[in-house]
Amino acid sequence: MSIVKASTLPGFMELLPKDQILFNEMRDIIRENFEKHGFLPIDTPVIEKSEVLLAKGGGETEKQIYRFQKGYTDMSLRFDLTVPLARYTVEHMNELSFPFKRYQIGKVYRGEKAQKGRFREFYQCDIDTIGNGELSLVNDAEFPVVIYHTFKDLGFSDFTIHINNRKILKGFYASLGIEDSAAVLRIVDKIDKIGPENVLKELSETGIDEESGKKILDFIGIKGSVDEVLEELNKLGITDEIFVEGLDELTQVVGYARDLGIEEGFFDIDLKIARGLDYYTGTVYETTLDNYPEIGSVCSGGRYENLASYYTDKVLPGVGLSIGLSRLFYQLNEAGIISSEEKSLIDLLILPMDDCINEGLKLVRELRENGIRVTIYTEEAKLKKKFKYADQTKVDYVIVLGEEEIQNRKYSLKNMHSGDQVEITFDELVEKFKK
Amino acid sequence: MSIVKASTLPGFMELLPKDQILFNEMRDIIRENFEKHGFLPIDTPVIEKSEVLLAKGGGETEKQIYRFQKGYTDMSLRFDLTVPLARYTVEHMNELSFPFKRYQIGKVYRGEKAQKGRFREFYQCDIDTIGNGELSLVNDAEFPVVIYHTFKDLGFSDFTIHINNRKILKGFYASLGIEDSAAVLRIVDKIDKIGPENVLKELSETGIDEESGKKILDFIGIKGSVDEVLEELNKLGITDEIFVEGLDELTQVVGYARDLGIEEGFFDIDLKIARGLDYYTGTVYETTLDNYPEIGSVCSGGRYENLASYYTDKVLPGVGLSIGLSRLFYQLNEAGIISSEEKSLIDLLILPMDDCINEGLKLVRELRENGIRVTIYTEEAKLKKKFKYADQTKVDYVIVLGEEEIQNRKYSLKNMHSGDQVEITFDELVEKFKK
Repeated sequence: MSIVKASTLPGFMELLPKDQILFNEMRDIIRENFEKHGFLPIDTPVIEKSEVLLAKGGGETEKQIYRFQKGYTDMSLRFDLTVPLARYTVEHMNELSFPFKRYQIGKVYRGEKAQKGRFREFYQCDIDTIGNGELSLVNDAEFPVVIYHTFKDLGFSDFTIHINNRKILKGFYASLGIEDSAAVLRIVDKIDKIGPENVLKELSETGIDEESGKKILDFIGIKGSVDEVLEELNKLGITDEIFVEGLDELTQVVGYARDLGIEEGFFDIDLKIARGLDYYTGTVYETTLDNYPEIGSVCSGGRYENLASYYTDKVLPGVGLSIGLSRLFYQLNEAGIISSEEKSLIDLLILPMDDCINEGLKLVRELRENGIRVTIYTEEAKLKKKFKYADQTKVDYVIVLGEEEIQNRKYSLKNMHSGDQVEITFDELVEKFKK
Repeated sequence: MSIVKASTLPGFMELLPKDQILFNEMRDIIRENFEKHGFLPIDTPVIEKSEVLLAKGGGETEKQIYRFQKGYTDMSLRFDLTVPLARYTVEHMNELSFPFKRYQIGKVYRGEKAQKGRFREFYQCDIDTIGNGELSLVNDAEFPVVIYHTFKDLGFSDFTIHINNRKILKGFYASLGIEDSAAVLRIVDKIDKIGPENVLKELSETGIDEESGKKILDFIGIKGSVDEVLEELNKLGITDEIFVEGLDELTQVVGYARDLGIEEGFFDIDLKIARGLDYYTGTVYETTLDNYPEIGSVCSGGRYENLASYYTDKVLPGVGLSIGLSRLFYQLNEAGIISSEEKSLIDLLILPMDDCINEGLKLVRELRENGIRVTIYTEEAKLKKKFKYADQTKVDYVIVLGEEEIQNRKYSLKNMHSGDQVEITFDELVEKFKK
């Protein structure tokens, strides 16, 4: 028989169990935080009608999407969880209560160029709150609070949630007479890479005069504590209506977030943040790890005016954010910030002598009845091989089970890390491993 | 703008949040049981190379598979979790420890004819134990034990795990001079539908004489307690080597399973069970809900001689089983065995008066700091609308927050089911909802 090479497609992440355990832990923490903040689970299909997923169409999406026919049906794999949410909300409109707070954690697909740290299949962890007709600004404040708790629980102590409001940007640029702020935002976005001189140069190439250029640099250079930045923005004395509205919103969002207990020092106002240019309309968020700025934003989102205009005439404003978990996991691993300490999911492994398997199984049963996570090596083998297995599985404790142990109901419990051994009775075992 | 109809493809299950909560509970219970029995998580890509997934090829698989090209790559969606496991085990051979016990819970895809209760995208929950070269029979006994605990924890009190061994069947038919048992097994499998008379008739049509036909009927009619069936089988006095081997294996598996604590009455020996004709080679399992036989097997599996012969020359024997969770969930729901009691994931909902939102947020924060799952209605609205939301979200308890409550730090806690209201202090609230 000819042998097919056992390999995955390039660009598809696949983990060894030890890493998968760590990945799942992170996913569980994210889910737990989403749930305890009142977000409800949904689980939309990975495959949707192409006409639904591509209703907006255009751009990178159409190029990257996995699209195919089966029979007469034109279908595609979802490339994010937002378009399916829009479809879901409209399809189940009458069965949902609004504001509709949902979370979804699932894989999405983008056939982009394979490169280090970019995956064609990756997990997104999304929360969105959708209003029917309108949605209060309080919701905008809840998202940084959820991020704050989530990243704290994930074990991070140094991260910053950057908040901005697109209306402030739009209003500011309008006050300078710049109607198409998109081009300016693109240039400004590069300031950390190309420096202020080059930003000024590129701005002037789009027809912006030197004075305005300098004002833009001053504006995005506003720094300081949250309250200082708000004060500076007020001091600009800009009367553009959109600007005033944006500043008012940002001020309120900060206030609500503080009421909800976000910790000072874990968020700031960053006027450079704009996010997707044609999507977000108000509050926007990005999150960076303070000691690893090169990773970029690990959690982003914002407020949008209308979720589902391709599927309904109803106006459904929302706020949402997304954690790109696969990419985050990969980068944390690469940077050595996390490492699978080769944790075992079980507490104890029994290595029975070859003629003690039945008694081993009985011991396993008794220990499990007492809530202990225990498993047993089932193969006939030399003790050396059994210990090698114990080593590989990274279990913390091992008991070798022979005639003597069975008769005395006293066990020699070996700590696999220190090598220490202690004599222990059944009851002591139960006591030790009881959660 | 033209509106695209918001709808999913036919044959794709999608749940409302209240059902999704229930579905996730079941999935969590299954995962928890898999993990505590020592199975390790893996999460293979949904998309694989077509040549990998179709290495075996032929039959329904090729017709049902979702296969497509992107660029020059021929790829397909996985149709089960076993083929990816085979690929995974071979690809990561040197990094795994054997016996390799893995679980995977994930969606698989089959473009079969859409019909009630059959889905084109559905969850499978698989466990397998893979040996490198050989694998002890003890493992065959562990699987019924895992099923037993899992279905108990899922809340079922009446189910039966049916165990058989393919070698007993093969050996029995060989003892009658029947070499190709496949045809016979297919006929025998229909006995509950077509009755013994018709089975005899169909058997004779394949050239089996009446005496053998009657022996077959007697054989599959062997009933009784586990020990009675084993005794009957012994009494048959069949000396065919394969039969003897199978009976010995079955006897051992029953013994090991008892050592591991499987409860009598939750398993039996069912000689009619054969499972996939060209795949399983020894122990086979099916599981039925006693009061709902029409649902069929809800969890099946067995022993196979070689997992990955398409990808390696190494012999990798294994045992595995699979719960088809989407189908199970659908059928339990249809049969009224489970129902989403519209459980909320949160303990308490705050309905603030419109001018008390800030104070409401602070209360939410304080309660959350004490580990309570609480959320808040954020919109300005009439109290009636706020209560309607509370009703819809099925939360058990509600607090209406106004000036008075804030000043006195005394709250009126309303039980949404009984309508009862009690005055309660903050500390009493914390005490009440503390886990």
